[in-house]
Amino acid sequence: MKKLLFVLILSFSVLNGFSTAISVNSTPLIGAQVIIERGQTPEEIDLLFSRLAEANMNFCRIRMFESYMRDTKGNWDFRLFDLAFEAAQRHGVQILATLFPDTEFTDIGGFKFPRTEQHSKSIANYIKQVTTHYKNHKALYGWVLMNEVGIVKAPIEQRFTANRFRLWQKTDTVKPFNLAGYPVMTFQKERFLLDYTTWYLQWLSTQVKKYDTAHHLHVNAHAIFDTYSEYNFTKWRGILDSFGGSAHASWHFGNFSRNQYHYAMSANSEILRSGAGDKPWIMTELQGGNNIWSGGIPMCPTKEEIEQWMWTVIGTGGKGMIFWSLNPRTSGIEAGEWALLNYLNQPSDRMEMAAKTAGIINKYADVFASAKVEESGVSILYTRESLWVERNAQKSGQNMLGRAPGAAIKSVIGFYETLSQMGIQCNIKCIDEYDFTDKNVRNKIVIIPHQIALQKIYKQLLTNFVANGGQLIIEGLTAYFDENMHLQFSAQFPYRDSFGGLITEAPLKANLFNIQFLNSTLVLPAHAWEGHIQTEHSGILAINDSKQTIASLNNFGKGRVIWIPSCVALAARETSNYQPLSDLLSKYVVSSLNENTIRFKQFTPGVLMKVLATNSGRVLVLINKSGLEVSIELTGIEASKRLIQLNSSIQNEIEPVTISLQNEETKVFLLK
Amino acid sequence: MKKLLFVLILSFSVLNGFSTAISVNSTPLIGAQVIIERGQTPEEIDLLFSRLAEANMNFCRIRMFESYMRDTKGNWDFRLFDLAFEAAQRHGVQILATLFPDTEFTDIGGFKFPRTEQHSKSIANYIKQVTTHYKNHKALYGWVLMNEVGIVKAPIEQRFTANRFRLWQKTDTVKPFNLAGYPVMTFQKERFLLDYTTWYLQWLSTQVKKYDTAHHLHVNAHAIFDTYSEYNFTKWRGILDSFGGSAHASWHFGNFSRNQYHYAMSANSEILRSGAGDKPWIMTELQGGNNIWSGGIPMCPTKEEIEQWMWTVIGTGGKGMIFWSLNPRTSGIEAGEWALLNYLNQPSDRMEMAAKTAGIINKYADVFASAKVEESGVSILYTRESLWVERNAQKSGQNMLGRAPGAAIKSVIGFYETLSQMGIQCNIKCIDEYDFTDKNVRNKIVIIPHQIALQKIYKQLLTNFVANGGQLIIEGLTAYFDENMHLQFSAQFPYRDSFGGLITEAPLKANLFNIQFLNSTLVLPAHAWEGHIQTEHSGILAINDSKQTIASLNNFGKGRVIWIPSCVALAARETSNYQPLSDLLSKYVVSSLNENTIRFKQFTPGVLMKVLATNSGRVLVLINKSGLEVSIELTGIEASKRLIQLNSSIQNEIEPVTISLQNEETKVFLLK
Amino acid sequence: MKKLLFVLILSFSVLNGFSTAISVNSTPLIGAQVIIERGQTPEEIDLLFSRLAEANMNFCRIRMFESYMRDTKGNWDFRLFDLAFEAAQRHGVQILATLFPDTEFTDIGGFKFPRTEQHSKSIANYIKQVTTHYKNHKALYGWVLMNEVGIVKAPIEQRFTANRFRLWQKTDTVKPFNLAGYPVMTFQKERFLLDYTTWYLQWLSTQVKKYDTAHHLHVNAHAIFDTYSEYNFTKWRGILDSFGGSAHASWHFGNFSRNQYHYAMSANSEILRSGAGDKPWIMTELQGGNNIWSGGIPMCPTKEEIEQWMWTVIGTGGKGMIFWSLNPRTSGIEAGEWALLNYLNQPSDRMEMAAKTAGIINKYADVFASAKVEESGVSILYTRESLWVERNAQKSGQNMLGRAPGAAIKSVIGFYETLSQMGIQCNIKCIDEYDFTDKNVRNKIVIIPHQIALQKIYKQLLTNFVANGGQLIIEGLTAYFDENMHLQFSAQFPYRDSFGGLITEAPLKANLFNIQFLNSTLVLPAHAWEGHIQTEHSGILAINDSKQTIASLNNFGKGRVIWIPSCVALAARETSNYQPLSDLLSKYVVSSLNENTIRFKQFTPGVLMKVLATNSGRVLVLINKSGLEVSIELTGIEASKRLIQLNSSIQNEIEPVTISLQNEETKVFLLK
Repeated sequence: MKKLLFVLILSFSVLNGFSTAISVNSTPLIGAQVIIERGQTPEEIDLLFSRLAEANMNFCRIRMFESYMRDTKGNWDFRLFDLAFEAAQRHGVQILATLFPDTEFTDIGGFKFPRTEQHSKSIANYIKQVTTHYKNHKALYGWVLMNEVGIVKAPIEQRFTANRFRLWQKTDTVKPFNLAGYPVMTFQKERFLLDYTTWYLQWLSTQVKKYDTAHHLHVNAHAIFDTYSEYNFTKWRGILDSFGGSAHASWHFGNFSRNQYHYAMSANSEILRSGAGDKPWIMTELQGGNNIWSGGIPMCPTKEEIEQWMWTVIGTGGKGMIFWSLNPRTSGIEAGEWALLNYLNQPSDRMEMAAKTAGIINKYADVFASAKVEESGVSILYTRESLWVERNAQKSGQNMLGRAPGAAIKSVIGFYETLSQMGIQCNIKCIDEYDFTDKNVRNKIVIIPHQIALQKIYKQLLTNFVANGGQLIIEGLTAYFDENMHLQFSAQFPYRDSFGGLITEAPLKANLFNIQFLNSTLVLPAHAWEGHIQTEHSGILAINDSKQTIASLNNFGKGRVIWIPSCVALAARETSNYQPLSDLLSKYVVSSLNENTIRFKQFTPGVLMKVLATNSGRVLVLINKSGLEVSIELTGIEASKRLIQLNSSIQNEIEPVTISLQNEETKVFLLK
Repeated sequence: MKKLLFVLILSFSVLNGFSTAISVNSTPLIGAQVIIERGQTPEEIDLLFSRLAEANMNFCRIRMFESYMRDTKGNWDFRLFDLAFEAAQRHGVQILATLFPDTEFTDIGGFKFPRTEQHSKSIANYIKQVTTHYKNHKALYGWVLMNEVGIVKAPIEQRFTANRFRLWQKTDTVKPFNLAGYPVMTFQKERFLLDYTTWYLQWLSTQVKKYDTAHHLHVNAHAIFDTYSEYNFTKWRGILDSFGGSAHASWHFGNFSRNQYHYAMSANSEILRSGAGDKPWIMTELQGGNNIWSGGIPMCPTKEEIEQWMWTVIGTGGKGMIFWSLNPRTSGIEAGEWALLNYLNQPSDRMEMAAKTAGIINKYADVFASAKVEESGVSILYTRESLWVERNAQKSGQNMLGRAPGAAIKSVIGFYETLSQMGIQCNIKCIDEYDFTDKNVRNKIVIIPHQIALQKIYKQLLTNFVANGGQLIIEGLTAYFDENMHLQFSAQFPYRDSFGGLITEAPLKANLFNIQFLNSTLVLPAHAWEGHIQTEHSGILAINDSKQTIASLNNFGKGRVIWIPSCVALAARETSNYQPLSDLLSKYVVSSLNENTIRFKQFTPGVLMKVLATNSGRVLVLINKSGLEVSIELTGIEASKRLIQLNSSIQNEIEPVTISLQNEETKVFLLK
Repeated sequence: MKKLLFVLILSFSVLNGFSTAISVNSTPLIGAQVIIERGQTPEEIDLLFSRLAEANMNFCRIRMFESYMRDTKGNWDFRLFDLAFEAAQRHGVQILATLFPDTEFTDIGGFKFPRTEQHSKSIANYIKQVTTHYKNHKALYGWVLMNEVGIVKAPIEQRFTANRFRLWQKTDTVKPFNLAGYPVMTFQKERFLLDYTTWYLQWLSTQVKKYDTAHHLHVNAHAIFDTYSEYNFTKWRGILDSFGGSAHASWHFGNFSRNQYHYAMSANSEILRSGAGDKPWIMTELQGGNNIWSGGIPMCPTKEEIEQWMWTVIGTGGKGMIFWSLNPRTSGIEAGEWALLNYLNQPSDRMEMAAKTAGIINKYADVFASAKVEESGVSILYTRESLWVERNAQKSGQNMLGRAPGAAIKSVIGFYETLSQMGIQCNIKCIDEYDFTDKNVRNKIVIIPHQIALQKIYKQLLTNFVANGGQLIIEGLTAYFDENMHLQFSAQFPYRDSFGGLITEAPLKANLFNIQFLNSTLVLPAHAWEGHIQTEHSGILAINDSKQTIASLNNFGKGRVIWIPSCVALAARETSNYQPLSDLLSKYVVSSLNENTIRFKQFTPGVLMKVLATNSGRVLVLINKSGLEVSIELTGIEASKRLIQLNSSIQNEIEPVTISLQNEETKVFLLK
């Protein structure tokens, strides 16, 4: 009964468009960016929103170009966007409106900070005008404070930023010599950018709230694997109502090959989910169509990829997603690219797939409203400081995976991909997002792969974590530096007790070399440096030809630390062979998991599984990009349970023993 | 009788050196750049001109370095160049003198625009001095207004250009929003450079004509495949007496491999010929010798290449050619490079070949004076705007042939190379050089390959062309944009009627994929994007696996349009296999040619044929760079005709059935 | 007796640390850079010096960071360095102190010239403070005037340098037109840098000598294969007490593969040795440890490499060497890298090898004190001007070994490597370091490989050299230009008489082509250009398919010239096959050597031999990096001699017939 009533309400709400919400308990919203441009006719605008509605999408994003809101005399003229808002309302579509102050026509991403004081006033005035004009419009759902926050380098050559930097420096307490007296790197520009980005989001939200306190505030981080070090997500939780991201395969997944894009999307989603904390998150931009000149690695998504990405976002607890874009821009850079609709404004096969998937999500609205990621207790941690160090290290000469900026995050990705191919959910968290106050760490596993800079504060937190029963896996040159690029690999190594030893050296051995585990057939390829451990209390897992210890296991307090100070995750990526690392994790991670953790019985290359807990049972998302048909045996499921495939017209219940997937196939099951 | 008289006059004129002329009815002139430098002795200068004369060359070019025309006090001192002019006259050599105002010694190409007002006055004064001094010299044939016009980017960071740009902007009528209201790219800098270049040539010619109205005016475009979008050739016809170009294999043929340099030279020549219109053209610079540090793809031409290039220029209707250079510079950049003479000022084997070929041309002066290219009716069109778009599009990330600037002109080249290997002459024209007023288009074929920007004006002109009976071949993403980078691939596609449909999408498929033609064995490789046609009135030539139409044939009016909206010419180049594209053209082009068009019976890789119509019969130039000996069967020749090989000491008449050529061999025949 | 006494004195001096010396008759000093940083404790500093002493090292280098000599108020505070000096004295270690005025923390190499007048005053004051404070300290051995002189390009954008440049220009006599009147390249910036560098070293030495005239002055050139054209070593002999260099494999040996690093080290050493002339030289920086982010081609030296480098320096007459570094920096760029000690300040296996080798050198102090390189009479000459030309030539377009800057020095290296694999010692000299006043040139062989710029002055000097009985080997495009990039390949070729002909052309033939010698099985691969000789008096050694002479032998006076105007040394490097060039040299060099020259009987790839003459007999250093075990037969040794291996605990005397070396093995013998 209850279910039936819900469906009725849902149907109603879809029709009148009032129930749209992004909250931790809301049904995921599916939508697309409607490109509203000068030149469009009312009929065309109406057609665009009708295409959305026909595709089960009651949600959209619109870029509120200031440059299209002025007449030739510079007077405000909202008629173009009024047309769009009216059409949206007519078709039951809610709008997440992106603030987009005036910029060059060729500046397709928009500036990230004001250039001058005068410029900031102009931005404030624009926000005043646009929020005042639309705040009472029923089609308005909320505001995106800016398009794609994230810039890599603060523009301190610009006056506004230079001034903010000077002010910030006055309050900065980090000195060029550390407490012990050693000279250190202060990373002023990097830390400033972190604070400045938060400050600017706060400033933007303040501007909006002067005129509109009612609507939802959102922003989307982009190119996450390159920009993660400039986001202070935990602070953003006080500014935003929801978190978001742009995850365009052709722009942002350069660290992955195309058959790894499900892992890329999933890793990107996990980073956002962790950042959001208790706040909901959505994928604010998902590539909808073709690249011609745009994109770093150009592509046109297949309909199968569209389906994969949608279920990956849902499977990572996303409360919505917005394709970029419904329709293409019509002039200049990106014209004719990215869209779900074809050049004739007809649905492409990608659009049809998005519509079908949106329909399924709507159909099972009650299931997905209550869905939460079923956490495994496994977390991979990254530190912003590792990227700062990488970018400030020498970068000339021969390129090696481990020497180039990005090695730290690629190490994170390498572990994530490996666990994903074992069917094990795992979190990816900035280390400051991890809850070290939690004392219940029995089944908690923390992996810190090649995070070359580890802040001094974590000595105590990690020590406690292990002492309390947690398990740490330390890989690569993790903890080489502290947050000021001061060497921690020394006789004073802060993790000596918990890790169970000291590093003596980490010589460059070869691009690839092997770690042969004692009393085991396990041979782990490693990349570049071979870290040597002088063990003190710990057990030796592997030695090299010169009898130096290169992997150890230290029981400490109630927990333990596995320490492999060589880059085995980078080696997995370099060799495209994740099986050896999976064998290691089978031995040291799987045994620590809760028994009823759903996972693959065997390492299955190219397959991803996401598991959601819902009021109606668990939801399993399985995606196969292995290039082959696969059969997967799951463990952790009670024999009495049955699987119902949600994304299929045939809804036989099957026994959850072995699931087969064609190549590129996505299957979504309700397990109950 | 008449003929005999002509030969007599010619012989006389060669001896006294007064008959030199560049006109559409003149005998082609063969010459070389004589490097005149400070430091040379009168004896050395005399030797250089005697070397020319001995080599059947009564024509040369001299760079009139302002820096060598001043004494140490800055007074004008023409003695060095007087020596050269006197020596030239003594040896019956006419001079095309290149204006070369003062510049840095290391600036070997010369500046392209004045830097300041003051600088322009200095240039004007230099022109006054040099023209006044030499205008009455009998050795003077004419002036090259500047060395190698063409700069890629207007130097608007310089004061003079900045001022001209501001003036130009005031008169510009293109607005940032088009008539329909859409925002567009105005390409101000690109259009400015186009106009500014013409303006500056006009300005230079005005300066010369203040003092000398009697002599011939010339300029040479260079690096044509990179600079074509900055030349407004039709306007230049009002300024210049003849057109010219630099075609240095090692600098300018980077789009070609060495065994394609005959096609490169031929394509370059066709572009100049089309630009010149009714004016004569010559190849102003042809590589004469060796590269050491200079040149993009360094080489030393073989004597066979010298012969090939000379006959290619002649075979494309060139009225002359000048090697760069006779003798080498002696200091600094390019010293010891490029020359026909060796380090001892003796003729190299290249010089001997040039002399021999010049001798043949002189011997058949009556034939070549009347020679005109025998046009096939086939034209490949390019648009400047396509290059502007390519250069303003996103260019980051993965390189693909189709995404990088140059794809448009390489598509033109791909068709040109294919037709050349079929023995079919074809024009390469900027679209504004094509005579769309001509109503007699029965046997006219226009190919527009991957010209991504097609100006709105051509909607009507192309529609009329087809309606009147012309045949269009549209390939790649031709007409994706209009001239303001506004998308034309839409429901409002301007070519819907004539092309017979609309493009729905053009997804990136793969670097190479196949187009399988229906009811045919033809499989055409294509590159990158697969354009999908929603046919309306047209016939379907090919479909993909998803049943989308990817090639069509539309009968429209008296004509028809073949439409293949994928990059098949780029694929031919990428695969180095032109046979499939040749098969397509055999089917759709050959059938539309005049029956008596001379061409190869079969596709012959690596061979080029040029055909001239003359008063004495047709001249055939055949060049084989296939790497193998080939036998070529020609069609289109009446059985009664006979071939006489002009570039052979043995002049048997042969039947024009099968011609054999050794690898690298050039044969020139008179067919009568 | 004498020997025993010496050993006693030595032992004593090691203990009290007073006998340290760098002179041509001193025992080689072995040491390491002690990184002294703020933050270090007295205990740690003491430990570092005790580690040195334990390792048989009584010598070190310390960087005297001005930034660590100031308290927070800017007052001078020498306490940190006082600790270091005291610890050094305590452990009997002498200090070569590097002047290092204040610079950014991230500027790890230090600036090379003052930025402003004010800055130069600040430097002078720093020198005053530091020299005054330490000049009476017993641990002080001497001063390194600056860290790593050498900058590639003078910073004329900085005020101080700009002023010096203006002053220099006023005195410069080179004009833009040469005596004959030809325009030329003046290479002002290059010649200025050469003079300016010498001037600045002089200025620094003057500053030191204002306060301290007692101590040794030293400086180290770095990246020698890229910077050699900015060093005027012969002038430096008047400024410095000893010469030095940095030879870090991972930074400076980019022209070599890892198995060629012994040749790299040896060639670097020969260049320094030649520069030093009668002054002693040491290798001031030798890579001691691991690279992580630093280094161009990162590596961690093996202990075998440490041994190889040490004996190579000794074998080239080096009077000492200092590893960079003993201990690692602890923060920022290079932190944790380069060191001989591990992270726990324990000796690595590299340190143990260095200690062992230092011990052997100390043990045979009498032998090595008297050791001088046993010269073979073979010298390879380079000219600075060749690099200037390479850097000013066109550099765009296709890269070829011969076109890129570096071809000239790589040609030198190619000959050096070939001779080394024949076991023949040879000098590498800047041409102005060669003693052309020596009339006794019977067994002298001078090789000038592809030195494209040869100063006019050498016409007479080389002509005399050959006339007096010397043998010249001229290879590649040597003498193409004079010192002002004016072409010498012409009918006026200055070396016509001595070389025996003229160059007619040097066409680009292919990346690799063959030179087939007449009446010989010798086929020499050559690279790029094939130089053609018009012989006049000389014998023809090789002709090409067109019968052009491409190698000749000219008997002139009492000597002769072998002339191969093609790049055969570059070809040897390109093909990694030195055997053909070795065959050539076997024929033309070996026959001219003194009969008792010790060398390999056969070409032995991958092996290096160094020979020293000492008071106690000759010392042979043999290093095998061939990848295989080798057996080497030596010639030139009297049958009665015996070999005693110095770097072995087993010291059997063996017959000097056949020496076997394992791969990577170094054997050092005393031959007596």
